This record gives sequence, structure tokens and C-alpha cells, in this order.
Amino acid sequence: MRILITAGGTTEAIDSVRGITNHSTGKLGVSIADYFAQQNSYVEFITSTHAMPPPQSSRINTSLITNTEQLLTVLTQQLTTIDFDAVIHSMAVSDYTPALTCSQEEFAKKIEDRLNQGLSVNEALTIITKSSKTSAINKKISSTNKTLITILKSNSKVIQRIKKLQPQTLLVGFKFLVSVTQSKLLNVARKNMKNAKADFFIANDLTEINENKHHAYLLNKQSDLYREAFTKEEIATLLFKQITERISAK
Amino acid sequence: MRILITAGGTTEAIDSVRGITNHSTGKLGVSIADYFAQQNSYVEFITSTHAMPPPQSSRINTSLITNTEQLLTVLTQQLTTIDFDAVIHSMAVSDYTPALTCSQEEFAKKIEDRLNQGLSVNEALTIITKSSKTSAINKKISSTNKTLITILKSNSKVIQRIKKLQPQTLLVGFKFLVSVTQSKLLNVARKNMKNAKADFFIANDLTEINENKHHAYLLNKQSDLYREAFTKEEIATLLFKQITERISAK
Repeated sequence: MRILITAGGTTEAIDSVRGITNHSTGKLGVSIADYFAQQNSYVEFITSTHAMPPPQSSRINTSLITNTEQLLTVLTQQLTTIDFDAVIHSMAVSDYTPALTCSQEEFAKKIEDRLNQGLSVNEALTIITKSSKTSAINKKISSTNKTLITILKSNSKVIQRIKKLQPQTLLVGFKFLVSVTQSKLLNVARKNMKNAKADFFIANDLTEINENKHHAYLLNKQSDLYREAFTKEEIATLLFKQITERISAK
Repeated sequence: MRILITAGGTTEAIDSVRGITNHSTGKLGVSIADYFAQQNSYVEFITSTHAMPPPQSSRINTSLITNTEQLLTVLTQQLTTIDFDAVIHSMAVSDYTPALTCSQEEFAKKIEDRLNQGLSVNEALTIITKSSKTSAINKKISSTNKTLITILKSNSKVIQRIKKLQPQTLLVGFKFLVSVTQSKLLNVARKNMKNAKADFFIANDLTEINENKHHAYLLNKQSDLYREAFTKEEIATLLFKQITERISAK
């Protein structure tokens, strides 16, 4: 079996030394890669520079990325050149990229200028966001400003690109929430699964994860039933079983 | 010799899964700790959870921190209970902590409310910043907002606390800039050295650092002269020599 796994979390630059990260150790992705490789699968592994590296194995080939743009480049390259039986997309991808960072005074002036033209504050903010192309990623913003203001623009959803690039692959997505009810978690994950045209979704909550446990629900687009796992190893085993069953049923 | 070394970079939470990081691998701090331990120094090493760990050694004791507040707690505890011959503060500490993150619409409304009270945009921003206590670090901000706005408040300078807590220790600070002239780099570092009451300062520029080289200047508060080093090992050796000379001259 040939599998593509993403893991870790992206970092979007605010300037040359600061960035916004999605905290993710990449451990769950490593557990999954490890298990699939032990079952003789060939694994392409994409992870972030700050995450845990996968085990050395002739069956695991690793690519390192930092930000969402690099992730899209590597994903597109892989998905257009290699046929994967499944894509397991566990990487925590930044939903936002800094569009502008400046001092409070500069920011106030930008808004005042637009108010003087008769715009509302919200209209002013929309224009300021649209007209700022990228952050000052080649310089370091001075730390002498007492207050900085950052505008964050939402990124396009990487997971929604996967089936567009490789429609026949099985897609496993992940939803990670914090301190919500089980029904909310499952509902949000089902909605995300549908939007991404994913075949399976893993839903988990930060409050149910620690060093020794990792409680997760595995959802299946074909039924309302779900399976549960309580450790990273159980998640890996469950995913392997579900994916091989689905492939042999094809 | 007993040395305290800080390395790596802090992360300040925007919410429970996102944060603002100061990119730092912590490699230079590890090289310095390694060299001092080899020279029979005892090293207290404070680094960040995402940075490179120091080598296993009975002479190196490591503490892990994530954000600036935790760094200050550990530093204060160490500096008030152990006498250090020198403190080498190479950690990239966040200059800013998120005070507020909200949607563009919520942000616009907060400003409009203050404009209606007769305040200017800048006055409105000052009040909004002051009245926002901490970020929503216990929840995850929904990614359905197209635009988010974050206000970042400047932190107090950690390096300026070190000599206040332990006046007799030798203090080595670091200035890291990006793509500036040599004279600008040295001038900024001298100013920082004075403000921190540091005895030595290492000044380096991102464009002069890669896997094999690490060009740095070692400044000394007692003279206008500087020393140069071209690798992490040379920086470690130079620091050890300068510190031992200064201690024996005491």
C-alpha cells in the first residue's frame, strides 16, 4: 500500500524572526507512519521543521515544510506524480496568514485616513487588509513599539484540495477541538468530512489527550456509526484496518 | 565554574492551539553548553519545548519552558537560589504577547463604540489594549472568520531583570538582527548591552548564519574593541576564554 501522511504544524511568518504557529508535536502522525511502515506500506511523510521526525525506515520518505504555501507546493507535487491508496492529513495547518503588522499609531493613521474619506471602521479594515500584500518577512519588526497590531487573513483549506488533485484516493481528515461536548465534536467533524469530500475523519479534543492517552473517534462517511480509540497506537491500528478493508472492497 | 544558559525561543499563546513564536533552534546555546560542560563547568540550561535539547551530561541540568512568563519564573527561582559565575542569555524571548484576538467585525465595533464617545482611533486602540487582559488561551478561536485582528502588547525585557536579581554575576546578552550593516549591528548591540548592564554581548545577523557558519561579534563593555567568531564552536570557545579571564581578574 502507498500512503501519504502529513503531520506536525505549519508556521506563518510575521517577520523574519517571528511567526504564528499551530502547536503540534506531530506524534500522532509519527505513530501512524510507523504502524503503516511495519505493515509493509510505503509512506510519503510530510511534516514541519519543528515537529517530531518519523523513525528512520526504508519505507518512509520524509519531506520538511514550514508554512502553508510550502505544504501546498509539496502536496501538489506528490499528488500529481504518485498514486496513493490513501492520504492521511493530520497536519495542523494555519488557518490564517499575517497580512500586515504595524505599530498602533501607524494602524490608527491608516484607519483615520479612510474615515476621513467617509468610510466606516469596518470598511476601512477591509480595504487595509486587501491592500496589504504580505508581511515584512524579510525584515525584523523593531521591538521598540509598545503595541503592534496584526491583521490575519484566512487561508484556503488545504484538505479541500486533496480530492481535487487525486479524486480516487481515500482521504482521512482530522478535526481537533478544545473542551467541547462529544456531540459538538462529532457534528463539526461530520461537516468538515463532507466539505473535504473525505472518506474518514478522526475527531479529537485536546482535553482528552495526554502523554499516555489519545481519545479519538473515527467517523466514516458511509454511515452514522463511529469507532473509538484511546491511544495513538489504537488510532493507527484502527485506521490501517479501515483503509485496508475499504481498499479490498473496491 | 557554574553557568546559567538560556537557549531556544519562547511561544506566546494566541489561543489554545495557536501561538506567536520566536524562531530559534537553540543550536548556539547547545554548542555553548556543550563546550562549557567539557571544560568542567556546571551548567543550568533553560530552553524551550520546541528547541534542540542539550547533550546528555551529568554537568548539564535542563529546564523546559514555553512562554515568557514561565521563563521569568524559572530564571527568578534559579537566580535567587544559586550563585552563577556567569549568565549566558541566548534565548529569543518574545517581545510581544497577544492581548486580544477577535474578528474584524468585532474589532470594528469596539473602535466605533469609542469613536461615538468622541475618542480618536488611536485613543480607542489604547483603551481596547489596556482593557483586554489575556488572550482566549483556553479556547480555540474559530477559523470561520475571514479576517482576525490581534493586538500585541510589549513584554518587559527579561535580560534587564538578570542583574537586578543577581548583581555580581557576569552577564552575556545576544543581539540578533537581520540584514543590517556591521556598524548598525554593533551600535544596537552596544546600546542593548548598556541597558541590560551586561558585561559582554554577542551581535549576529541572520544573513551571516547557515549550517556551517555563524559569524558573530563579541563585544565587551569595558572597551570599544570587539572579537569575531565564525562558527558556533568558535563563539563557545571565545565566550569561555573571555569569561574565565574576567573571573580570574576579579
